[in-house]
This record gives sequence, structure tokens and C-alpha cells, in this order.
Amino acid sequence: MKVKYNLLHKDANTNARYGTIETNYGTYETPMFMPVGTKATVKALTNRDIKEAKAGIILANTYHLWLRPGEDLIAKAGGLHKFMNFDGPILTDSGGFQVFSLAKNKKKDITEEGVHFKSHIDGQKLFLTPEKSIMIQNKLDSDIAMSFDECPPASASHEYLKNSVERTLRWAKRGKEVHNNPRQSLFGIVQGGAYEDLRKYSAIETVKMDFDGYSIGGVANDGESKEDMYKAIDYSIKYLPEDKVRYLMGIGEPLDLLEGIERGVDLFDCVLSTRIARHGNAFTRSGKINLRNAKYREDFSPLDENCDCYACQNHTKAYIRHLVTTDEILGAELLSIHNTRFLIKMMEEIREAIKKDSFLEYKEKFLEKYNN
Amino acid sequence: MKVKYNLLHKDANTNARYGTIETNYGTYETPMFMPVGTKATVKALTNRDIKEAKAGIILANTYHLWLRPGEDLIAKAGGLHKFMNFDGPILTDSGGFQVFSLAKNKKKDITEEGVHFKSHIDGQKLFLTPEKSIMIQNKLDSDIAMSFDECPPASASHEYLKNSVERTLRWAKRGKEVHNNPRQSLFGIVQGGAYEDLRKYSAIETVKMDFDGYSIGGVANDGESKEDMYKAIDYSIKYLPEDKVRYLMGIGEPLDLLEGIERGVDLFDCVLSTRIARHGNAFTRSGKINLRNAKYREDFSPLDENCDCYACQNHTKAYIRHLVTTDEILGAELLSIHNTRFLIKMMEEIREAIKKDSFLEYKEKFLEKYNN
Repeated sequence: MKVKYNLLHKDANTNARYGTIETNYGTYETPMFMPVGTKATVKALTNRDIKEAKAGIILANTYHLWLRPGEDLIAKAGGLHKFMNFDGPILTDSGGFQVFSLAKNKKKDITEEGVHFKSHIDGQKLFLTPEKSIMIQNKLDSDIAMSFDECPPASASHEYLKNSVERTLRWAKRGKEVHNNPRQSLFGIVQGGAYEDLRKYSAIETVKMDFDGYSIGGVANDGESKEDMYKAIDYSIKYLPEDKVRYLMGIGEPLDLLEGIERGVDLFDCVLSTRIARHGNAFTRSGKINLRNAKYREDFSPLDENCDCYACQNHTKAYIRHLVTTDEILGAELLSIHNTRFLIKMMEEIREAIKKDSFLEYKEKFLEKYNN
Repeated sequence: MKVKYNLLHKDANTNARYGTIETNYGTYETPMFMPVGTKATVKALTNRDIKEAKAGIILANTYHLWLRPGEDLIAKAGGLHKFMNFDGPILTDSGGFQVFSLAKNKKKDITEEGVHFKSHIDGQKLFLTPEKSIMIQNKLDSDIAMSFDECPPASASHEYLKNSVERTLRWAKRGKEVHNNPRQSLFGIVQGGAYEDLRKYSAIETVKMDFDGYSIGGVANDGESKEDMYKAIDYSIKYLPEDKVRYLMGIGEPLDLLEGIERGVDLFDCVLSTRIARHGNAFTRSGKINLRNAKYREDFSPLDENCDCYACQNHTKAYIRHLVTTDEILGAELLSIHNTRFLIKMMEEIREAIKKDSFLEYKEKFLEKYNN
């Protein structure tokens, strides 16, 4: 089935919205944070851990899975769900962002047809087109596929971005034409940097193509300022239909989640929660902390007193610090479990706040304690 | 309490024995394989994973915990059980093996008083004595402590080993004298290489000191042959009392477990099961396999059709191979879960076989399929 978004309540004071998204694997509430399972695994988490974190949808990467193990192997396994044995909804990105951020030496040749670049693994020459991206995603059999877009750097000029937006629209159309999986939804992506005219144009033209959902892209680039990210959301979101889900790509800092939700975003994804975990960091109500810090040596309290995750229910900061400083895998596991649950629990609280028209109070209270 | 071993049944055709060991944390059946939690974590496994593998006792390393995070911190946490939140029995080794195998550049100065060596982490000068080892273990508050012994290389001469055995006996006595933790049992260690006279002497003299259990050491050294290992067991075990538990240190290859059990061993430990997991290997009924092998690329069957572990119940070889070849942490987790459960399940089957006087049939049947 195609995903269906149901808008159930709008916050009285902001654009924050509470809703549900119906998928092939059940109905989930939004706003929602999607853990990232880049290579068909949310790093360091078992599927049980993912379920216990109460994740709704998870994300997987078309680019990475195309390279390894290849979409044909996954199709042979019966699709991505069977391959990784995950019985919840999966969204695949188009590979666009990875092509632009991971290509060997970041060199690529963008043509109207698609992008020529070299594999980040072995330098092999690769060519990804809108059609190819969609066909790979069709084979992966994810629940939601993303259109293949160009992701220009934050520094791109208005002129460059204008051409890029036009090209992304043509690519979106080409991808939509070859999309051929009735179980799979297809989302369009709004680009246009921090330029009001380009975001407006991109949003209006993308919506005209009538996708199953819309995302706001180009906001997770290196060097982009927070202000530009918020502008990009503001300039795009007002042209997106209320009855479709809105997804802000690659964003997962607690503060940015709050800003996105306030502006009407429903879905987020980010590698941050698990990446910082592997470097010994934990989200807490008072901000991000690094367990390598000596002050946690004798701290026999959990990462977060109010967290219901396996790590917080079972272990102390002192123990996790010991694991992190001695490079034990379990340290990365416990912190990944915690950080994932932290963001998802934050979403649960935000949904409750929206339902009570108290999103701003929630945000204010959260920010009072959270200081980085 | 001191551990109590209950011999419940002897195999009619071999020296294999079935029994139970009563500990501070309940009663467990033997023969038993103890997963190794070197630094207060069985690598890549959560405590839940350890419980699900149905582990009885786990092992932790005095040397590693002495260095990081230090026994005083663990004592402050309330002991090792509380520090790592493990509510099953824990055995700590004495640090002897690590001093001899891990000391920086393997250089050490063995005196009657103890061993001078340098930390494998930062080269810091360290001095470990029998008293120090026991006092650290007292503070760790493990359920079973091991005597501090000298672990000479497999190549040591009879003359060297004779002196070494004498020294180890004196060290065992010194350790026993300072041991001061009524909740903690203390085991003696038999040394003597592959020499019948030395093993006999070491065993008889160690038993005279009346420890709570006995282990056979010096069998997991680099370069030692299987034949010498089996000899070392044969020459030692006949002098060990029937009413105390017998522990073969550092051994965990399925074939060696069978040989040890046939000779009357009750406990085993080894890092092998989790170490080979981190290198992409799995135990199976037909032998060890390496998931990096291309032949598993499209193998959508579990690692072991008859295994009840989380990995086998949920994932295919093809998926685990993908995780291993893309260096995903989950690959190490799943393989560690499987390998640990594999050995423990093998122990369960062996206990049933012994109870039915059919250990040899079990061994023969196992070896028919297991080919490496």
C-alpha cells in the first residue's frame, strides 16, 4: 500500500502537528524520528533493540546497499525486510546524498543523464541515474522510496542552485515514471538551498507531480548554518500539502528536531544518535555528554534517570565509561541503544505536548535544561 | 558461601562426570563452559545475551580490571557484580596468565616475591605478587578467585618447570594465607607442563593445601601441542579429589572440550568463541566456518539449523556475511551470541549424554560431522 498520512491535531500556537502514518507494517504516530540502518543494520543494534526503542520507521541507504551486498542479492532474499528480518516499515533514500558526500575524493561528473563518480570503497567507476536509483529501491522493496536528487553544497550560488533545482525536478519526474512497485510509496524532495524563490519553486513544482509524501532536502550539508536550515524549512513547508507527510532529511540534533517540528515537520532521520554513541557520547536531558570525561569515573547513576532504555535500566555511567575507555563493543551498543531511545522518547513527549496544544511549553522546558 | 561441588553421575565408560556447583548465585550443572568477560564485559554481549546463552558462571580478568578501571573503583561500585550488574556467579583469574602473555614485549622479571613487568597498555612498571592478586580479587568480590601462578612457556625445560612448580606452590600458600573474603572461594592451580612427575607432584601438593576447587593450568600456552595438553590433564586429574570441581583453564575448542570432559574436567573457559566471532567465524555442527567465504553470499539458512540462539532464530548466513564483510558491529554481536550459545548448548547435550552413560556415543557422533 501507499503510505497514508492522517493529520489528527494541530498545535494551537505553532505549526507543529500530530498525526499518524499508515504503512505496510502498521500505523505509527508522528512526529517521528527514524533510526538510520545504513547498510541494513542500525549500527550496533539488534532488531530487538530497535523494537524496544519503539522506533516506527527505520531508514536504509540505497547507495550503500547497491554497492554491498547489491540489490539483486537482497531481492533474492525476498527484499530488504526479509534480508534483515525487520518487520517494521523501512524508508530508503535515493543514494543522491551519498553520491554527493561519499564519492571518492568527492569528485563527480553531474550530467543531465545522471552522476558519474567513483565508489568510496574501491574507486570503481559508477553511474547513478534517477531511473537506476528507483529501480534499485523497487528491488530493495522498501516501504518508502525517495526520488533521486542533486545535493549541492551549502556554498552553491543562486545560479547554480536554480539549475540544480530544475534538474532535480526533471530527475524526480523520470524516477516517478519508472517507479514500479505497488507496495512502495515514492516521495519527492524539495531543494533550493536557503533561497526563498528557489524553495518555493521547487516545492510547488514537486507537489504538482503528486508524490506520496514530501521531504525537505539539502539541509544536512557540511557548513550549512542553523539559520539557513530553518529558512529552508520555512520557505519550503508552506507549499507542501497538509494531507501528506513531511520529512526533513538528515536532521537529528534535539534542538533541530524541536525547530523542525515547530515548523510542521513529521519525520526525521539522522546517523548522529548512533555515530556519537560509537564515539562515547550520550544524549541526556542536560545536553550531550562524553563518557570519556573523568568526571563520570565514579558516577554510579544511569545516563538518564528518566530513561526506560536497556542501558539506563541496567547500567551506570561509571560502567559505560569503563567500556568506552577500554574500547569495548558493549559501550557502543549501550550508548547506541540509549541515544536512539532518547530521541524516540523525546518524540513521544512532543506528540503528547502537541495534542495538548503545549508544544511551546515543552520546547521551553526542554531547552531550559538542555545546554548544548 | 564457598562453592560446593556435587558429583551426581559418572559416565560408565569414561571419566566424564555430571554434577552441580552451588554458588552465591544459585546452583549450576557441570560440565560447563564459562564465557570470558575479560574487562567486566563478555565482548559484544549484553548481560541479557549472556543469560539467554544460558551461561552458568562467567570469567573476568584480574589483570585487566586491576589496570582499568582499578579494583578500588569496582569495590566502590559494590563489587564486580554490581559494577557490571551481573547477577550470576563470576570467577576471576589471578592475572598470572596475562602477566606472562601480555606484559610489554613479554619481558618480565620473576622473583620469589612476585613478577615485575610493564603494562601492555602504557608501559607503566608494575609488580604483581600472590598477595596482591588475591587482595585485588577480594576487592573485586568475585565468587571464585584463582591462586596466582607462574605460567611458563610450553618450551620450558624440566628443570625450569620443577623450580616453577615449587614457586607456584609457595605462591599458592601465600595467596591462601591472605585470602580474606568469606563469600569468595579460592581455587588452586596445578602446573608442571607435560611432565608426569611434575604434574603429579604439583597436584598432590596443591590438594594438600585444601582449596575450594582445582584447576589445571599451563595448557593454553602458545605452541603447546594437543598431545601435551591431554597428557597434562591425564597426569594431573587423577590426583584431584572427586568432591571438588575441576577446571581446565583457557580451553574452548569443541574437540578439546570433549577431550577434557572425557578425562573428568567440569569447567572450561576460553576467549575463542567471542574472539573468532569478531573475525567473522562461527561454530557449526560441521566445524568452524568463516562468513567471509563467498559461498555464504546467497546462503539464506541460519548458521546452525538446530541452534536456539537469537542469531540463528532471526538471521541468515547471507545477512551475517553482509554484516561481517561491511565491518558492521552487529556482525560481531550476532556471531558472539551464536558461538557462546553453541558451546553452552554442547555442554547441555554432553550432560544429558553423561547421565545416560553415552558420552562416547555423543563424542563419536559429534566428531563424525565436525571436521576441523
